[in-house]
Amino acid sequence: MAERLGFIGLGILGRPMACNLVQAGYSLTVFNRSRAAVDALVQAGAKPAGSPREVAEQSGIVVTAVTDAPAVEAVVLGADGVLQGARPGLLLIDMSTISPRATRRIETEMAPSGVHMLDAPVSGGDVGARQGTLAIMVGGEKEDFERALPVFEVLGKTITHCGPIGAGQTVKACNQVVSALILLGLAEGFVFGSKMGIRPDVLLQAFQGGLAHSRLLDLRGKAMIEHSFAPGAKAKLHYKDLGIALEAAREYGVVLPGASLVTQLFMMLVEGGKGELDHSALLTVLETLSHHSLVNLPEEQAHS
Amino acid sequence: MAERLGFIGLGILGRPMACNLVQAGYSLTVFNRSRAAVDALVQAGAKPAGSPREVAEQSGIVVTAVTDAPAVEAVVLGADGVLQGARPGLLLIDMSTISPRATRRIETEMAPSGVHMLDAPVSGGDVGARQGTLAIMVGGEKEDFERALPVFEVLGKTITHCGPIGAGQTVKACNQVVSALILLGLAEGFVFGSKMGIRPDVLLQAFQGGLAHSRLLDLRGKAMIEHSFAPGAKAKLHYKDLGIALEAAREYGVVLPGASLVTQLFMMLVEGGKGELDHSALLTVLETLSHHSLVNLPEEQAHS
Repeated sequence: MAERLGFIGLGILGRPMACNLVQAGYSLTVFNRSRAAVDALVQAGAKPAGSPREVAEQSGIVVTAVTDAPAVEAVVLGADGVLQGARPGLLLIDMSTISPRATRRIETEMAPSGVHMLDAPVSGGDVGARQGTLAIMVGGEKEDFERALPVFEVLGKTITHCGPIGAGQTVKACNQVVSALILLGLAEGFVFGSKMGIRPDVLLQAFQGGLAHSRLLDLRGKAMIEHSFAPGAKAKLHYKDLGIALEAAREYGVVLPGASLVTQLFMMLVEGGKGELDHSALLTVLETLSHHSLVNLPEEQAHS
Repeated sequence: MAERLGFIGLGILGRPMACNLVQAGYSLTVFNRSRAAVDALVQAGAKPAGSPREVAEQSGIVVTAVTDAPAVEAVVLGADGVLQGARPGLLLIDMSTISPRATRRIETEMAPSGVHMLDAPVSGGDVGARQGTLAIMVGGEKEDFERALPVFEVLGKTITHCGPIGAGQTVKACNQVVSALILLGLAEGFVFGSKMGIRPDVLLQAFQGGLAHSRLLDLRGKAMIEHSFAPGAKAKLHYKDLGIALEAAREYGVVLPGASLVTQLFMMLVEGGKGELDHSALLTVLETLSHHSLVNLPEEQAHS
């Protein structure tokens, strides 16, 4: 029989992920700080809970998908948290993006109560979450990974067991470095070409055909040249993830000049009040630096 | 009836491109500085010529695919060059990667003799050249573009008319900025994860599934983690292209912090004697910076 699941955190990614689990037939108990998202899930067939503790009391496996390490610690270790409602053998799958170090700290606090933990951050954005095609990067014990696999297979397509507890977060940090530099490349390429007189849609087509091609170009290229920055993946969260990456890199002695630079540019974006936009709004930082915008071209230039 | 073609420059890209034209049934006259590549093409059915001038005398359309602007100027404008053998109406298609400014200078010198010109640099590497799936970025007059289209359709898949003469080179410069930053992202991601204890093949799989995915990851990811750096696209040529990009960006007032940084790192690679390797050898620069290599791990770690 399928395990009873709990789900805590119904944001841009959590909500469609929880929906997919309900639709796959799982019995799902959900909790979210704001009530509107809970109501939507209940309509889809989930059961509401009044606290993370109540979620844990109803579940064999609890998934958390919240914003940052303090939020994970609050819902897991805090008052009325998962740990207070957990029986021995409960499996906590944290799909938030936090640091490997914070992950290991949480796991250490829960272990004496017999609670098992996997870190399982994702990549693929809101589109991947809706379609159930996320990349899921998992750290933890092999047996726990196998127990969780049916759940992961509902949520994602590329499921990688990366190593012991924290390894999923390490790989996610690497992933965020790679994707940030792809976004920087696209931002520079678009601003460069556009200021030299090339139509942005021509740049988009050319990039798609050659070595400049990437999944981010497919997902966000058109939106970037149209300045459509509804998230998606929020800039402030990618900026937070880059902070995690640079902290871990410093701890392990890894020199990351590109990640350092792009983090500074994300800081410009967030400090400029654009942290709630999609991370592809990094484009606007490059536009500001060069005093040139891809949109609002004079009519004759836009249609030549 | 199909036009008679000439082809000058049978390097990593030029040789498979010329082969594809012969196999598509074109009458092709070829010239190359070193004779070995000519012999291979002649075996495939091409006619050899003793100089670029002879190529032009035999052809309605001449393709050049050489290393840099001085090389294009030598074979086109120099002694026994294309211009000396050209009749009015000859179409020169320069598929080398040179600056937009040098392109316009060459076009201006040929125009009084009635020679037309397109700039048509490519992206897609040796694999794209062999498979006939290159991205071709074209600048020049619409009628010349349409005259050349059947040739382009043999060589490439994504064929973009980018604008007037030089526009293809401008878009190629943008493309090289984007692809260099993708390579930097991969290099940092692999070194970061590996030094933190994640197996490189695990990183590769995770990157492929999420927002870190790119065509360069598909083409070069496995080779990078195995340190297989046979070109492909030579590091010294990508470094040259980045120089073109930064020069043009300075001329047009475009601030490119990422391109500037990655150019410095490519300089480290080339000055370190690795310019003949594939551009994905940028990985080794990041390995040097962090005193950590992806290969030569202790046996138990490599196979755990």
